[in-house]
Amino acid sequence: MNILILNGPNLHVIGTREPKIYGSRSFDSFYQELSAGFQNIRFSYFQSNHEGELIDRLYQAQEEGIDGVVFNAGAYTHTSLALADAIRAVSIPVVEVHISNVASREEIRRTSLIASACVGSISGFGLFSYTLGCYALLDHINKQVE
Amino acid sequence: MNILILNGPNLHVIGTREPKIYGSRSFDSFYQELSAGFQNIRFSYFQSNHEGELIDRLYQAQEEGIDGVVFNAGAYTHTSLALADAIRAVSIPVVEVHISNVASREEIRRTSLIASACVGSISGFGLFSYTLGCYALLDHINKQVE
Amino acid sequence: MNILILNGPNLHVIGTREPKIYGSRSFDSFYQELSAGFQNIRFSYFQSNHEGELIDRLYQAQEEGIDGVVFNAGAYTHTSLALADAIRAVSIPVVEVHISNVASREEIRRTSLIASACVGSISGFGLFSYTLGCYALLDHINKQVE
Amino acid sequence: MNILILNGPNLHVIGTREPKIYGSRSFDSFYQELSAGFQNIRFSYFQSNHEGELIDRLYQAQEEGIDGVVFNAGAYTHTSLALADAIRAVSIPVVEVHISNVASREEIRRTSLIASACVGSISGFGLFSYTLGCYALLDHINKQVE
Amino acid sequence: MNILILNGPNLHVIGTREPKIYGSRSFDSFYQELSAGFQNIRFSYFQSNHEGELIDRLYQAQEEGIDGVVFNAGAYTHTSLALADAIRAVSIPVVEVHISNVASREEIRRTSLIASACVGSISGFGLFSYTLGCYALLDHINKQVE
Amino acid sequence: MNILILNGPNLHVIGTREPKIYGSRSFDSFYQELSAGFQNIRFSYFQSNHEGELIDRLYQAQEEGIDGVVFNAGAYTHTSLALADAIRAVSIPVVEVHISNVASREEIRRTSLIASACVGSISGFGLFSYTLGCYALLDHINKQVE
Amino acid sequence: MNILILNGPNLHVIGTREPKIYGSRSFDSFYQELSAGFQNIRFSYFQSNHEGELIDRLYQAQEEGIDGVVFNAGAYTHTSLALADAIRAVSIPVVEVHISNVASREEIRRTSLIASACVGSISGFGLFSYTLGCYALLDHINKQVE
Amino acid sequence: MNILILNGPNLHVIGTREPKIYGSRSFDSFYQELSAGFQNIRFSYFQSNHEGELIDRLYQAQEEGIDGVVFNAGAYTHTSLALADAIRAVSIPVVEVHISNVASREEIRRTSLIASACVGSISGFGLFSYTLGCYALLDHINKQVE
Amino acid sequence: MNILILNGPNLHVIGTREPKIYGSRSFDSFYQELSAGFQNIRFSYFQSNHEGELIDRLYQAQEEGIDGVVFNAGAYTHTSLALADAIRAVSIPVVEVHISNVASREEIRRTSLIASACVGSISGFGLFSYTLGCYALLDHINKQVE
Amino acid sequence: MNILILNGPNLHVIGTREPKIYGSRSFDSFYQELSAGFQNIRFSYFQSNHEGELIDRLYQAQEEGIDGVVFNAGAYTHTSLALADAIRAVSIPVVEVHISNVASREEIRRTSLIASACVGSISGFGLFSYTLGCYALLDHINKQVE
Amino acid sequence: MNILILNGPNLHVIGTREPKIYGSRSFDSFYQELSAGFQNIRFSYFQSNHEGELIDRLYQAQEEGIDGVVFNAGAYTHTSLALADAIRAVSIPVVEVHISNVASREEIRRTSLIASACVGSISGFGLFSYTLGCYALLDHINKQVE
Amino acid sequence: MNILILNGPNLHVIGTREPKIYGSRSFDSFYQELSAGFQNIRFSYFQSNHEGELIDRLYQAQEEGIDGVVFNAGAYTHTSLALADAIRAVSIPVVEVHISNVASREEIRRTSLIASACVGSISGFGLFSYTLGCYALLDHINKQVE
Repeated sequence: MNILILNGPNLHVIGTREPKIYGSRSFDSFYQELSAGFQNIRFSYFQSNHEGELIDRLYQAQEEGIDGVVFNAGAYTHTSLALADAIRAVSIPVVEVHISNVASREEIRRTSLIASACVGSISGFGLFSYTLGCYALLDHINKQVE
Repeated sequence: MNILILNGPNLHVIGTREPKIYGSRSFDSFYQELSAGFQNIRFSYFQSNHEGELIDRLYQAQEEGIDGVVFNAGAYTHTSLALADAIRAVSIPVVEVHISNVASREEIRRTSLIASACVGSISGFGLFSYTLGCYALLDHINKQVE
Repeated sequence: MNILILNGPNLHVIGTREPKIYGSRSFDSFYQELSAGFQNIRFSYFQSNHEGELIDRLYQAQEEGIDGVVFNAGAYTHTSLALADAIRAVSIPVVEVHISNVASREEIRRTSLIASACVGSISGFGLFSYTLGCYALLDHINKQVE
Repeated sequence: MNILILNGPNLHVIGTREPKIYGSRSFDSFYQELSAGFQNIRFSYFQSNHEGELIDRLYQAQEEGIDGVVFNAGAYTHTSLALADAIRAVSIPVVEVHISNVASREEIRRTSLIASACVGSISGFGLFSYTLGCYALLDHINKQVE
Repeated sequence: MNILILNGPNLHVIGTREPKIYGSRSFDSFYQELSAGFQNIRFSYFQSNHEGELIDRLYQAQEEGIDGVVFNAGAYTHTSLALADAIRAVSIPVVEVHISNVASREEIRRTSLIASACVGSISGFGLFSYTLGCYALLDHINKQVE
Repeated sequence: MNILILNGPNLHVIGTREPKIYGSRSFDSFYQELSAGFQNIRFSYFQSNHEGELIDRLYQAQEEGIDGVVFNAGAYTHTSLALADAIRAVSIPVVEVHISNVASREEIRRTSLIASACVGSISGFGLFSYTLGCYALLDHINKQVE
Repeated sequence: MNILILNGPNLHVIGTREPKIYGSRSFDSFYQELSAGFQNIRFSYFQSNHEGELIDRLYQAQEEGIDGVVFNAGAYTHTSLALADAIRAVSIPVVEVHISNVASREEIRRTSLIASACVGSISGFGLFSYTLGCYALLDHINKQVE
Repeated sequence: MNILILNGPNLHVIGTREPKIYGSRSFDSFYQELSAGFQNIRFSYFQSNHEGELIDRLYQAQEEGIDGVVFNAGAYTHTSLALADAIRAVSIPVVEVHISNVASREEIRRTSLIASACVGSISGFGLFSYTLGCYALLDHINKQVE
Repeated sequence: MNILILNGPNLHVIGTREPKIYGSRSFDSFYQELSAGFQNIRFSYFQSNHEGELIDRLYQAQEEGIDGVVFNAGAYTHTSLALADAIRAVSIPVVEVHISNVASREEIRRTSLIASACVGSISGFGLFSYTLGCYALLDHINKQVE
Repeated sequence: MNILILNGPNLHVIGTREPKIYGSRSFDSFYQELSAGFQNIRFSYFQSNHEGELIDRLYQAQEEGIDGVVFNAGAYTHTSLALADAIRAVSIPVVEVHISNVASREEIRRTSLIASACVGSISGFGLFSYTLGCYALLDHINKQVE
Repeated sequence: MNILILNGPNLHVIGTREPKIYGSRSFDSFYQELSAGFQNIRFSYFQSNHEGELIDRLYQAQEEGIDGVVFNAGAYTHTSLALADAIRAVSIPVVEVHISNVASREEIRRTSLIASACVGSISGFGLFSYTLGCYALLDHINKQVE
Repeated sequence: MNILILNGPNLHVIGTREPKIYGSRSFDSFYQELSAGFQNIRFSYFQSNHEGELIDRLYQAQEEGIDGVVFNAGAYTHTSLALADAIRAVSIPVVEVHISNVASREEIRRTSLIASACVGSISGFGLFSYTLGCYALLDHINKQVE
C-alpha cells in the first residue's frame, strides 16, 4: 500500500517554528520513525509552500497509484478552496491532520475549507496526529476493499 | 490503565439511527471488539441523554482514577458550554471523537464548544474514530509520564 | 391509535405562568377535555423540565408502540439540537406545537432547532394548538397507511 | 360564517409544480372537498400572483363581511412587509398556512414577515394545512364571541 | 426570611477548578461563613449539574416559601432559555451572581440569557458576589414590603 | 407648478388603521386642506397597493409634466429596489415622507431602499410630513430654477 | 423555435435611463435587430413593472408553447423570491441576463434570488447580453433534444 | 415661542467645509435670514464640537423655557447614545435635521442613534432642512397645545 | 478610606428622568444617606456629561489618593473605549454600577466597553447598586491589603 | 484577433472530475472544436493550478498582444484578490466564465472577487460558456474599435 | 515649517500606563528629543482627553498656519466619526500614528474611523512612530509644493 | 546591515498600473534612489506574484542573514494566512508597507491578515512608505541590539 504524507506551507520548519504550538521535534526525524513503524506501507513525502504545487501533487499522486493521503494543509486549510476542489477531484481518500488543536487558536483557524472534502479529520495530538492519520487511512481503505 | 468511553445523546441507538450517516453496526458489538483489542486497558462505558449526567460522570471518573476519556458528546458538542467547563475542571485528558465527518453536515454542527477544552479531536472515521481516540489517549498519557 | 402529548420545560405551570402569553386555563383541565374528544385515540402524557428525560421519553414511546407525538418543546425548541436528533432517530411522526405565536416574541424564539425534524409545525392558537396537532397527526398517519 | 381562502403567487399550479415539495393533488379538487366538509361555513377563494391584488383583496374581504382568512402567502411570506401591514390594518383574523415544512427548506424561507401579524401559523401538513387553518379560525372566532 | 443559594454546573468544585479564575476557597467553607453572617435569614443550598434539576428546584422553592434566590447559573447562564423561562414563571425574586468578571472572558460568556429575567446582576467579586447578592435581595424584598 | 402626492400600500386607510401609529384623521380630509393651502400648486393624487402601479405612475408623471413628487412608499420603502430604480430613472425630484417616526419602529423599517434616490427625507410629523414635503419640493425646485 | 424576451421593471426606458450604466440605445431598436438576426426563431417580447404580471407571463408562456425565455428581471432579480418560484414551476428553460456588470454595483445587487432557478446567467455585455442569452438558450435546448 | 437651533461638531464651518456635500453658504448668513423669517419666534443658537456641551445645553434649554429644539447633531448622530438619553430626559420636543441626504452617504451614517428619541427627522434639503425643522416644531407644539 | 462616586452623562437628573426606569428619588438625597452609612469612608462625588472630564477625573483621583471608584458611566458605558483605557491606566480599583437592569433594555445597552477594565459589575438594584458597589470595593481593597 | 483561453485550478481534469457538476466531455476535445469554429481568431490556451502562474500569464498576454481573455478562474474566483488586481492592471478585456451555475452551489461560490474587474460574466452553460465568452469578447472589442 | 503633534485620550501618561504595550519612556522626554532632531521645523504640542477639544484644536491649527499634524487619536481612533469629519474639514494634511501595533490587539482596535481621512497611517514602532510621522509629513508637503 | 525589499503580486508594474492609486513612478527607478540613500545598508530585492515564492523567500532570507524585511504583500495582505505564518516562523523583523491608504479603499482591503505578525505597519505615503519602512527597521533593529 502506498501512502503520501503531504505537508503544506511552513511545515518544513516544524521543530524550530513556534515550538510552544508545534513542538520541538523535527519532521524529518519523525518521518523516519513513522515510515519504519508501518511495514507494509511504502511512504512518500512532499512539502510545499505553494498552493499550486500541492494541487499538482494530488493529481500526480493519483497517476502514481497512491492509495491514500495524510494531508496537513497548514494555513491553506483555512483559505484554499482550490485545494478542497482538488481533493474532491482525485479519487484517492485524503485524511486531514493538524499538529496543534486548531479549535483553541485564532478565529480564522476554526473553519476548515477542506474538511468536508476529506474522509475525516484529526487534530491536536502533535506529530502523533500523522500516525493516527495512517491508522485511519488503513482502516478506511480496508473497509472499502471488503 | 483505565479509559472511559463516554457517549452523549442519541448514541445508544447507533446502528439503527440514520444509518447513512452513522453506519449500521451497533455500538455494543463494536465496544466488545474495542475492549478486547487493547489488552492493558480496563475500559468502562457510559451513555446518557442527559447533559447533567455526562457532567456528573466526568467528575466521578476523576474520583475513580480514570486515566483518560474518549468522548463523543453528540449534539451537546455544539450546544453545551457546561460540558466544556466540566472537561476543563477535571484533571483527566479528554479526546473528542465523532462518527461522522461533522464538517460536511449542517452549519450548526461545524462549531464545537468542547473542542478547545479537549486534547484533540477526531471525526469522520465511523466507529473507528473511537479506536483512534484510544490510540491518541495512550500516546498522550505516555508522553506526559515521560 | 396511541398518541403521546409531550410537554417540555415550564409547561406544567400553564395557567398560572405569564397568563398574558400562555392563557389562564390549566393544562390538566385542558388535557381531560382533549382526551375525551378523540374517542379512538388512547392518549398518554409526559412533562419534564429535563432535556434528557424528554429524549429518553421519545425512545420509550417508540418501544411502547406510540403512533405519533404532539410535542411542545418549550424553550428547548430554540436551544436543543439533541432533541432534534432524537426526533430524527425515532421512527414516530412528531408534530411541533406552541401555545403562543412565537413569531411575535423575542428574536431567539424565532428559530426552531427541532422544526425541520418534525412533520410540521403549529403555533399561536393557545391550547387549541394541541388539538390541531392531534388532527394533523391523524391525517398524517392515515395518509401513510393508505 | 364566511371564510376566505387566500392563495399567493404560484399556488394556482399546486399539483403540477415541484410535486416532491407540494404534492400532486390539484388545489381545485382539494377546495371542493374542503368547502363540502364545513357545512356552516360559506367559503370564498382568491388566488393572485400580484402582491397588490392580495392586499386589495384583504381590504375587500373586510368590506364583504368576511369573518376570517386562511392565507398561504407563498413566496411573499418572506418578502412582503406590505402584506403584513395590510393584515394588521384589517380587523379580520388571519391564519398563516404553508403546504410544505418551511423550516426544512432554504434559509430565506425560514423567516416569515407576516407571521407576527397573524393569529398563528401552521406549516408542513400538505393541503391539510388549510383544513387545520379553518379549524383554528373557527376556534379563534368562537372564543372571541364568548 | 428564607433565601436559597442556587449553584449551576461545575460550581461544586469551586476552590480546585481553574483557581486563577475562580479562586481557591471551597464553596462549603464560604457558605458556612455566609450563613453565619446573616442572622435573620434561613439559608438553604442546592447545586446541580442538571439544567432540569435547577428548573425543578426553582418551582419547589416557590412551594417552600423561599423569599428570594441568589443564583449562579454557571455555564447555563449563556445557553439556557428554559432557566430564564422558569425564573419568569416563579414569583420569587432572583439575583444573578458570577464569581468571575464574565465581561473579560470569552465572547460566548458575554451574553446572559437569564439576566433580563432577574432583578439584577452582580459579577466579578469572587465569592463575595454571593454576599452582595444577599444584600441586594434583602434590599429588594424590603422595598417591596414597604 | 404641478405636484403629485403619491401614496404606497395601506395608506388609503389612514385614519382607521392602527391609529396609535398613524393618527385618526382620514387622508382625504387632510388632502383637501393641503391642496387648498398652496395656491400656486396644482396637486394630483394617486394611491396604490401595487408596486408596479406606483412605478408606472412615476413614468406617467414624467410624461404629464409633473414638477415634483411627495412620496410615501409605505412598506415598499423597505423592500422595493425597483421603486428606487424608477425614481432614479425619471427626471423629477422626489421627496420621501413618512407619517410615523420610522426610526423608532421595528428593525426592518429602519432601512430605506429608496432614500438615496430621493432629494431628501422627512418622517415622524404625522400628516404634516406631507406639508413639509411640499415646502421642501418648492424650495428645491426654486433653487434649481435660479 | 419560440423565444420570449422578458424584461422586468424600468427596462422600458433603456436608452434614456442612467445611460452611463445602461447605454444609450433604445431597447426597441435593439430588439428589431435581434429578432432579424435569428432566422429560425420566432420572438415575442414582454415588459412589465409589475412583479405579478411577470409571473403571469411565465405561466402563459408555458401555455403558448414558448421554448425558452431570456429574462432580465431588473431590480426584481434581487428581491423577488416569487419570480424564482415561478421559474422553477414552469418547465421552460430560462436564462438570466443583465445589461450592466451587477458584480461591480451596490451590495444589494450582488445577490440574485433567481439565478439558482435559471439555466445560467450572463451579465455585463450591454444589450449584447440578450444576444448571448439567445445563443445560450439555443445551445441548451438543442442539447436537451439530442 | 422660543426655539433653540443646536449644531453639533464641525457645523460651524458650513460654507467652507466639503462644499459639494454641505453647500457654500455660511451658517451665520443663513441664520440671520431664518430668524428674520419667523416673526413670532425668539431664536437662540448654540454650536459645539463637544458632546458634553451639547448635552449640557439641552438641560439648560429646559431651564430657560425653550419650547423646542432643531438639532443637527452632525457626526454625533451616529455615535452618541448619551445625547439620545439627554433628549429623552428633557421634556422639550426635539427635531433631528441634516443638511445632506445621509441615506446616500457611507454605511455608518445610515444609522441614527438619536432619531428614535426625537419627534421626527428631516434630511437632505441643504440649509432649508433647518427651516423645515422650524415648521415641524411649530406644528407639533401647536397640536399639543390644542 | 477614600471612595469616589463617579456619575456619567444624564445621571444628574435621576429622580426626574424616565422614573419608570431610573426611579423617582433624587441622587443628592440618596448620596447623603449613602455617605452617612459608611462611617470609615470619606466620600467624594463628581458628575459630568463630558467624556473627557470623566477621564480627567479618574487621573485626578489617582493623584488625590482615592482608594476606589464606584462608577456609573451611563451611556458612555456602551460607547467609550477611551474611558475603558483610562480605567486600565489608573491604578485604582473601579466598580461598574447601573441603576437599571441593562440586560433587559435595548440591544446597544447589553455590551459594556468598560466592564472588562473594572473589578466587577453590579446592575439592576436601583440606587442601592451604588451601596453594593461600596461594599464590593471595601471587600476588594481589604483582600488586597491582606 | 488573438484570444487567450485561461483556465484556473482543477480545470485540466474537466470530463472526469465530478461529472454531475462539470459534464463528461474533456476540455481538449472541446478546445479543438472551439478554435476550429472561429476562423478569424488565433487561440492560445493556458491552464495552471498556481495562482501566481495565472497572474504571470495575464501580464505575458499583454506583452504578446493578446486582444482578450476568456477566463475561468475556478476556485480562485472566490478567494484571489491578487488575480482581480492583475486583471485590473493589464489593459486587456477579460470575460469571466464558469461551467456550472455557481449561484446554485455552496455559499462561498456565490461571491466572485474577480467579477467586478472583468467586462462581464457568464455561468451555467457547460463548456458552451467558453463559446459565449468568445462571442462576448468579439462584440466588446469591435465596439471599442468603432 | 510648523507641525502640530496632537495626542488623544490617555496619552499624557505614556511611560507609566500599561508599559508592556506602550513602553516606559515618558512622552515629554521623547518630545524634547524629537523637536531637537528636526532643525527646520517649529513643533507645537497638544494633548487632551476631550474629543471636542481635539476637534477645536484642529480648526485652531488651521488658523495658526500649521502645515501638518501628526495625530495619535488613542481610543478615539476607533469611536470618533466627528474627529474624522474635522480632519476632512480642515485643509491641513494629517498623519495617523499609533505607538502599539493595533492590528494585534482587541477586535475593536482594528478598525480606524479616521484612517480614511488622513494622508496615511503608521503603527507599531513605539514612540518612533511619531518620528516616522514627521518624515512622512515632510515628504508629503514637499511633494505638494513641487 | 542587510535589508530585503519584498514585493507581492502585481507590484512589478507600479508606475503603469492604476496610476491614480499607485502613482506613476516605476519601482525600479525608485529602488535605485532608495538603495543609494542608505549608505550602510546592503539592499536586496525580490518580487513575485506567487504566494509560495514569497514564503520561500522569507525562509531563504533567514538563511542569508538578512536583518530585516520591508514587505508590501499587495493583495496577499488580505488573503494569505500562510504568509502570516511564515513571518511568525522566521526570526527576522518584518515591516508591512502599502503604497496607497488601504483604509480608504474597498472593504476587503481593510483587514490585514499579516499585520499582527509584523513589527508595525505603514500605509498611504506612496513609494515613500518603503523609505519609512527602512527607517522603522533601522530603529527597531538598533533598539534590539542595545
